[in-house]
Amino acid sequence: MALRVSKRLLRVALLVVSVLGIFGLVLHTTNSEITTYYVDKTKELVDSQKSWWNSEAAKSEESERKKAEQDAAEGKHLQDVELDDAAKKLEEDATKKLEEVVGGEGNGDSKTTPLKEKEPESTATDTKTTTVKAAFVSLVRNQDLQEIVETVRNLEDRFNSKFHYPYVFLNNEPFTPEFKSAISNVISSTVDFGLIPPAHWSYPEWIDQEKAATVRQTADYIYGDSESYRHMCRYESGFFWRHELLDKFDWYWRVEPSTKLHCNVDYDVFQWMQDNNKMYGFTVSIKEFESTIKTLWSTTKEFLDANPKFIAKDNMMDFISNDKGKTYNLCHFWSNFEVANLNFWRSEAYQEYFDYLDKKGGFFYERWGDAPVHSIAASLFLSSDQVHYFPDIGYFHNPYNNCPLDQSIWQKGKCSCEPMWDFTFQTYSCTNEYYDFKKLKKPDGWKKFRN
Amino acid sequence: MALRVSKRLLRVALLVVSVLGIFGLVLHTTNSEITTYYVDKTKELVDSQKSWWNSEAAKSEESERKKAEQDAAEGKHLQDVELDDAAKKLEEDATKKLEEVVGGEGNGDSKTTPLKEKEPESTATDTKTTTVKAAFVSLVRNQDLQEIVETVRNLEDRFNSKFHYPYVFLNNEPFTPEFKSAISNVISSTVDFGLIPPAHWSYPEWIDQEKAATVRQTADYIYGDSESYRHMCRYESGFFWRHELLDKFDWYWRVEPSTKLHCNVDYDVFQWMQDNNKMYGFTVSIKEFESTIKTLWSTTKEFLDANPKFIAKDNMMDFISNDKGKTYNLCHFWSNFEVANLNFWRSEAYQEYFDYLDKKGGFFYERWGDAPVHSIAASLFLSSDQVHYFPDIGYFHNPYNNCPLDQSIWQKGKCSCEPMWDFTFQTYSCTNEYYDFKKLKKPDGWKKFRN
Repeated sequence: MALRVSKRLLRVALLVVSVLGIFGLVLHTTNSEITTYYVDKTKELVDSQKSWWNSEAAKSEESERKKAEQDAAEGKHLQDVELDDAAKKLEEDATKKLEEVVGGEGNGDSKTTPLKEKEPESTATDTKTTTVKAAFVSLVRNQDLQEIVETVRNLEDRFNSKFHYPYVFLNNEPFTPEFKSAISNVISSTVDFGLIPPAHWSYPEWIDQEKAATVRQTADYIYGDSESYRHMCRYESGFFWRHELLDKFDWYWRVEPSTKLHCNVDYDVFQWMQDNNKMYGFTVSIKEFESTIKTLWSTTKEFLDANPKFIAKDNMMDFISNDKGKTYNLCHFWSNFEVANLNFWRSEAYQEYFDYLDKKGGFFYERWGDAPVHSIAASLFLSSDQVHYFPDIGYFHNPYNNCPLDQSIWQKGKCSCEPMWDFTFQTYSCTNEYYDFKKLKKPDGWKKFRN
Repeated sequence: MALRVSKRLLRVALLVVSVLGIFGLVLHTTNSEITTYYVDKTKELVDSQKSWWNSEAAKSEESERKKAEQDAAEGKHLQDVELDDAAKKLEEDATKKLEEVVGGEGNGDSKTTPLKEKEPESTATDTKTTTVKAAFVSLVRNQDLQEIVETVRNLEDRFNSKFHYPYVFLNNEPFTPEFKSAISNVISSTVDFGLIPPAHWSYPEWIDQEKAATVRQTADYIYGDSESYRHMCRYESGFFWRHELLDKFDWYWRVEPSTKLHCNVDYDVFQWMQDNNKMYGFTVSIKEFESTIKTLWSTTKEFLDANPKFIAKDNMMDFISNDKGKTYNLCHFWSNFEVANLNFWRSEAYQEYFDYLDKKGGFFYERWGDAPVHSIAASLFLSSDQVHYFPDIGYFHNPYNNCPLDQSIWQKGKCSCEPMWDFTFQTYSCTNEYYDFKKLKKPDGWKKFRN
């Protein structure tokens, strides 16, 4: 028996070794065109697998979402947050500016006929004549240089070569001279490079770092093992908008590496936001991974119970909760693209909300993302009229696309994306529910995307 | 002994199976962010492997090239080629146009001080005012839609949104309505879609198709098994320039999917070519795979011996041969990028050369590429002054880049490429030898690229 088994195993081993050997020989062909060919084939295979994985993943995420809605989490007792004088002053200024800019809470109409938001007109000029104080903001690492160069080049081609808004780049490490040179070379406007203060990228003194370390060892969700990812989420939630390089701006457009605009944007987006009293704009919305935010909602509810004054009239609670606020439905705006007013984050409502969350430690004891944090705040502290979805800003961040289904928008923007790629009305997005909430008219063909 | 061997093999087998099992489990995680993460990681791994493979391949290709130089091939006896009346007339017209456009053979100076070619000035205008009859030409398949949309979008952004030259797309199959719609959406000028006549994409009657089939079964070089690749090479060599949609043009710029311009091109390239009496422009040169063109040079020599009148004074024989024409050194211009005058291909010299090659059958019995065919013809039938290398047109076609090493060119063009990627002075390129041949001044830092 042993002898027969060993011969068979030997044959199997020989077969495996031969296959590996042949594969090795094939791969080590000295022909670079061949290697390129096989590399491309491998990439195609990887890509085709990816689309299969994504569809499988979407189904599972759907059931995860449903499961999450049934869960309920409890939180700790409220603690007051003390602000220092500088922060209080900034808060007052921001709250005043907020009122000046957007005229209070909005009118909160809810009509039964579908709303059609006023379409932007082309306002491109050769030189920057606008008085809107806005900048692109990009938190990026030195190693992301080529990706952010491509992204910025695309942003310039699709929008900013017409409007010349400045850029602010932020990094928790100093930018290299090579980074600054390469980025400056593709920008038509001005650029500033900022270092994040260590205080904004480190553990607060009240955080139990051993507990945080244990979480990183046992977390089973993506980036669960990462300290830097959590610092990044906390930074984008609570600090980017207070970097000194942004003090002079009222508006920002967040830009991440490896993202892309598909369509020409021929109007001044910041001017439009200001003229139309918007405070927060997005292109993609999606459901969060519940395991990363287990106690975020219960913590939020504590804060709301203690601070009802911050809750806006005509808020968007029904967008983020299907049961009047008992539970969170995981819907959030995908924050890797945001066009928004900095003074909202600087407002008393948001700063107190962030500080409350920060004290609870969920950025480290869980993996609270800036996207759900921003989204919950925008949904509760702003009037729904102040939130805006851009159907005309074609956008890509792996693996989702915002691509206009409306044929006239697609043609006007000379979009290079395929409408069938659009994520907007897919079931794992929440933008279909956003349209329903706001009673907006959906573009022809949206139903094709529903499961 | 048998017992011990079998246990060890069992353990190895168990280990392999466990590793595969774990890998499988990991991959089949239902979290799309995780799958995206691993797909990206796989792609990174593939990319890093690719650069290793390429450097290994380059070393081998270098030795292949040296080996090729020692080989000598013999060819068959010359056969006259009969042209029909229409072709003769076209030939005469083209030869006349050639003389009008470029004023004969050029002055053929060879100075000992480095030549500095006149730098182009920016000539961008809002509307197309030039009288140069030029078009972009792209041979592309329906399945390459997204890649060519990206490429055309980039070409528009870097050059043609300023100059509005038209596009001609060619395909051996009809273009789909989707293709036409998507491409038209990103083009700022006009576009024509052309079907290749079957006569230009099929076996001539003199080709022994069984012999050709045998070659495809036994060929050991890339695309060696492909019929369509060979039809494509033959088409680009002998026919694209005679598609009826190109009859009205004198100049073309060849565009392939998945290629990219890195730098802004602020001057009218066609106008510049015409003003400076250039006939053929390129961005990348490289050595050919000898096994694909075993008898190309011997066949060429037969043609030259029988047609010495076609050989230009001040030709570039010394660029394509290191021994005064005895053997071919495999150097050629990478034809996926060409800016050239169509009347050169329409000339008697080129048409007779092509017809001679075509009768020999090497497009099918070997794998003669349009690149070496174009390059040999340009090097022998044009004056060297009529050939131009573009140091300022940053270009990418997998896996090589043309990226300006000259800092002032890089800044002026707002190039998004990294100069360290540049292939120009690497040993497998021939452009270093081109600079030497033309006694041009090399940019600072070129030596870093030599092995």
